[in-house]
Amino acid sequence: MQAIQKIQDEPAGEHVTDPLTADQRAEIEEIRATGRETLRPTVPALEEILYQPLTVLDRGFVRVVDYMGDDGAIVQAARVSYGRGTKKVREDRGLIRYLMRHRHTTPFEMCEIKYHVKLPVFVARQWIRHRTANVNEYSARYSILEDEFYMPAPEHLARQSKSNRQGRGDVLALADAQRVLDLLRADAARSYANYQEMMQAHDLARELARMNLTLNVFTQWYWKIDLHNLLHFLSLRGDAHAQYEIRAYADAMAETVKRWVPNAFEAFDDYVVGGGHLSRAGLAVVRRMIAGEDVTQENSGMSPREWRELQALLDLDQETGAGPAPAWGQQPAG
Amino acid sequence: MQAIQKIQDEPAGEHVTDPLTADQRAEIEEIRATGRETLRPTVPALEEILYQPLTVLDRGFVRVVDYMGDDGAIVQAARVSYGRGTKKVREDRGLIRYLMRHRHTTPFEMCEIKYHVKLPVFVARQWIRHRTANVNEYSARYSILEDEFYMPAPEHLARQSKSNRQGRGDVLALADAQRVLDLLRADAARSYANYQEMMQAHDLARELARMNLTLNVFTQWYWKIDLHNLLHFLSLRGDAHAQYEIRAYADAMAETVKRWVPNAFEAFDDYVVGGGHLSRAGLAVVRRMIAGEDVTQENSGMSPREWRELQALLDLDQETGAGPAPAWGQQPAG
Amino acid sequence: MQAIQKIQDEPAGEHVTDPLTADQRAEIEEIRATGRETLRPTVPALEEILYQPLTVLDRGFVRVVDYMGDDGAIVQAARVSYGRGTKKVREDRGLIRYLMRHRHTTPFEMCEIKYHVKLPVFVARQWIRHRTANVNEYSARYSILEDEFYMPAPEHLARQSKSNRQGRGDVLALADAQRVLDLLRADAARSYANYQEMMQAHDLARELARMNLTLNVFTQWYWKIDLHNLLHFLSLRGDAHAQYEIRAYADAMAETVKRWVPNAFEAFDDYVVGGGHLSRAGLAVVRRMIAGEDVTQENSGMSPREWRELQALLDLDQETGAGPAPAWGQQPAG
Amino acid sequence: MQAIQKIQDEPAGEHVTDPLTADQRAEIEEIRATGRETLRPTVPALEEILYQPLTVLDRGFVRVVDYMGDDGAIVQAARVSYGRGTKKVREDRGLIRYLMRHRHTTPFEMCEIKYHVKLPVFVARQWIRHRTANVNEYSARYSILEDEFYMPAPEHLARQSKSNRQGRGDVLALADAQRVLDLLRADAARSYANYQEMMQAHDLARELARMNLTLNVFTQWYWKIDLHNLLHFLSLRGDAHAQYEIRAYADAMAETVKRWVPNAFEAFDDYVVGGGHLSRAGLAVVRRMIAGEDVTQENSGMSPREWRELQALLDLDQETGAGPAPAWGQQPAG
Repeated sequence: MQAIQKIQDEPAGEHVTDPLTADQRAEIEEIRATGRETLRPTVPALEEILYQPLTVLDRGFVRVVDYMGDDGAIVQAARVSYGRGTKKVREDRGLIRYLMRHRHTTPFEMCEIKYHVKLPVFVARQWIRHRTANVNEYSARYSILEDEFYMPAPEHLARQSKSNRQGRGDVLALADAQRVLDLLRADAARSYANYQEMMQAHDLARELARMNLTLNVFTQWYWKIDLHNLLHFLSLRGDAHAQYEIRAYADAMAETVKRWVPNAFEAFDDYVVGGGHLSRAGLAVVRRMIAGEDVTQENSGMSPREWRELQALLDLDQETGAGPAPAWGQQPAG
Repeated sequence: MQAIQKIQDEPAGEHVTDPLTADQRAEIEEIRATGRETLRPTVPALEEILYQPLTVLDRGFVRVVDYMGDDGAIVQAARVSYGRGTKKVREDRGLIRYLMRHRHTTPFEMCEIKYHVKLPVFVARQWIRHRTANVNEYSARYSILEDEFYMPAPEHLARQSKSNRQGRGDVLALADAQRVLDLLRADAARSYANYQEMMQAHDLARELARMNLTLNVFTQWYWKIDLHNLLHFLSLRGDAHAQYEIRAYADAMAETVKRWVPNAFEAFDDYVVGGGHLSRAGLAVVRRMIAGEDVTQENSGMSPREWRELQALLDLDQETGAGPAPAWGQQPAG
Repeated sequence: MQAIQKIQDEPAGEHVTDPLTADQRAEIEEIRATGRETLRPTVPALEEILYQPLTVLDRGFVRVVDYMGDDGAIVQAARVSYGRGTKKVREDRGLIRYLMRHRHTTPFEMCEIKYHVKLPVFVARQWIRHRTANVNEYSARYSILEDEFYMPAPEHLARQSKSNRQGRGDVLALADAQRVLDLLRADAARSYANYQEMMQAHDLARELARMNLTLNVFTQWYWKIDLHNLLHFLSLRGDAHAQYEIRAYADAMAETVKRWVPNAFEAFDDYVVGGGHLSRAGLAVVRRMIAGEDVTQENSGMSPREWRELQALLDLDQETGAGPAPAWGQQPAG
Repeated sequence: MQAIQKIQDEPAGEHVTDPLTADQRAEIEEIRATGRETLRPTVPALEEILYQPLTVLDRGFVRVVDYMGDDGAIVQAARVSYGRGTKKVREDRGLIRYLMRHRHTTPFEMCEIKYHVKLPVFVARQWIRHRTANVNEYSARYSILEDEFYMPAPEHLARQSKSNRQGRGDVLALADAQRVLDLLRADAARSYANYQEMMQAHDLARELARMNLTLNVFTQWYWKIDLHNLLHFLSLRGDAHAQYEIRAYADAMAETVKRWVPNAFEAFDDYVVGGGHLSRAGLAVVRRMIAGEDVTQENSGMSPREWRELQALLDLDQETGAGPAPAWGQQPAG
């Protein structure tokens, strides 16, 4: 998974709207105004942004609403200890790296985090496929959805990829992008107006009327997950093969994880994000190359596709010169 | 959960369309043409409908594509036996009823079934909340969705319920229903036309174009689950409080379970579907009533809402006269 | 599940030993000495006992080492709100009771708790069957187990039940109990001495030597679970049909839950612990009884076993006069 | 995970006993005598050994008792198809390899297998940590365990490893091994005799008496799991770092998977078993080595431990000359 790319915070362009109302911001400020005393582990760097929304896409957000544990909780669980579980800071970091490297995943399950997320329905549909989390979603049977639809920034309107049947390629020409946005805006507006008419003029049940909304309508949920499964989510949804819109959320969450458990995140970044997996054939090729042999796809025993993937991983791809994976957050948006 | 109601097969009215193409039907016939020999347990009643679609809603379906185990597998696991695990048929049935009654759920996990389902996206969103299943969904990043949208039959277009904030009440008047269907049809047609234009005229990536589709567009997936979790799904989604559209799927699946594991389904129907749960206060009221006391809400210690729920469960509700829950499938559609 | 019984704290008899060393107690005191400030919800009643061991059996314990959320987090998730999610205290309690009554389980998953538990291996084997938790156990491959074995108090040494093939009945006569304890003590001592000899005199690997220990040896683990799954665990393992030794742990944990989320625990106690489930046939019998009919097993349509279970639930059992289920904690030990 | 090693079938030495009674073998023969017709996919190579025990350790076994799906079911789910989902055999194999390489794990969840396993309790305790399976274990509360304890073959009695705190090293000297076996045998015999006395002479409840048994006593269970999670189990428990006793079971199961889904197993073997993971630092080192640079631990930026692990993976370790990982099953026992 060497291809995770940093998605920069959206510039606060015209298409970005504050995703919260003034009332909602006031509610958040009210909670943030009063500290409480606890004997539990706390993480000041995460408390700094607790409850605060990080804007994602044009009007979505991610905000941390609670957390349990810290880097120390990982070593505490690994050692099944009575106190904090920590020895020296350096030893703790070393243990966390060892656990990450050797797939000892259960200590990472001992930390838990809860997010409040506002996201388009088509993103929610990809997201929910991760089953090892707890979810409470805003109910469109019970309540009325707001008139909020995701409208991509023009630089994110891309062509169907030629090389990857499920990806996107170059950005659309301006005229195409303009037309696409016009269609998206008009259809969203019309479907929302008709959603309202069906409920207000005809008293149609909410659970039925909502079927007329388009898949870019925003929904929101509380989502709670342990650190191990969150890192797995980030490794899949922060990958360059993931759809841009969900990567934008993965990126915002990665920032929160970095604040929360810096040692665990560093290990994840070094071993998973920045690492790569070699097959038996790939290892054999690497051994021959190191021995000085001139290995080609033809004499490698690999399929052309696998060969290209190996070249990219080893940064031997003359054409793209993709280079090694940077650390999460060290690279401009794709 | 005494309120599960039978949803009759849709009459093959004008709005019901064969959800499969001729080619797809031919593929199914081809598989059904060739039996194979196996030493595994088989269930002839389920083999009869294996691979065959059961139509649900106007153009959705459920079809069983594989299964593992039978009633005998439940008793075999409960007894951890070397052979079939069965003793006499009567004893097996008694054991299954005992296990169901006493919440010994693990033996029911030893049976597994796999469905292929075609369903509207808003139903898929409710369905996927059940996390203990395996899913592979048709990818709208990789492929183009068909022009198929759920259009409710007029008799299923209902008003927002007055008494239940997340349910539906009376059927719409004809003029309202007509207008609602016109809006749904027009918006579906327009959004699909624009979906196509965005991809064809502007080469927009599929993963982006799909965001313009409305939530009643049909998707499909393979869905595999064990019997225990399937029964739990049926108890929640076959309940009268579930949305009609997902109940229609639960009902079709219940028919397949009845064929597959008749003893387990009978026990589920007797103890879960047809049963009811009493709280501590509810039990106390029942004891007093049996002792001949005249118990009222006021002297019951229950809230008005809980009292009404108890009256309905005991069929003492003068107003609605709801009556006891019939067996699954013995009652006309609500 | 009307049969949950309170298991009183063990009297601090001669057989109860402080399960912690002085060093371990010092480590705990050190953590408890320093409060931190947090913006997260806190629960003072739970902070009071945070990290403190509650003694269970003769030398086991349960201690809360972290928690996330409170009663307010349940309503916050149910309402997908921006602030605390709370309205008035009375409304919150009502909502929690409604959610519990109607099996809306996901909001309860939004609270998480982490325990450190010391327990005999045969109890750990029952416990671990609950799969929806995170676990880190002390490794007997890596470390050496202490010389600590569970020795039942004489009043817990019971005969095999005559009526229930997997339960226990009357307490053993004193002479029998004495002999049993002598055997248990001698075998534990011998197996531990030989465990040590194999490692020390013959350098046998720890992962092999441990196979000589008996199933009452104590192990320990960190165990983390969400509130919904914890309540499910308590309903199964706190039930009168559960083995006494695991019920003792369920009881200690119930005390911590009562401190942590008093409204949720109250609802659980009223609807689950103190409630009861009636089958379709059971409901029919109750309706006839309320109507004044004299129903007997013969004319009930129920099997003798189901009939007895119904009589017990309705407190009509002349023989045992079991009576209604008391609230958790209101009844002397069984 | 390049270090999986083949564990050969135990030679039928004196210490290996037929783990089944004649009656049990007769029951199995009876089931195997009658074929049934099914329309489901079947796998003749797996049917050949269906229900037959594969002996593991001295008196344990693994036997396949049911299965669902085949290689074709993986591609069928990946394509969400109406028929078998297969195109050409070569394309199917390629798709399965692609899915494995790119961690598209859900199609592998569409196959399910059920085992009956007889295993020592200390192995069962490691095994059960895998939570994504269904389990029914023989109940020692309800039934009496047989007098069967695992006794290691002398060549598996090993010293505590010097380099790996949780592993084993050289084999014990004969005299030490003899003494260890004498202790194990004597303690098992005594603890079983006392188990019987407690139940028979003193009528102690089974659930209590069993606590006197040692951890090498055999238990048994039905265990059902999907293919994706089974392969994950095999990758962890078939690894050279896993305890020999559980690796012996992983190896027997690997043989059944190879029969069941040969394409999926081949891909697993090539990409997971025979592959290896490189960290960011490891990839950088490999790139420099391929470029002809002389990289040492000192200038590698890796810790000594990580450096040694990398050398072993690349087969550059002069000392051990471990060599590349062979395919599963191509190497003599360790």
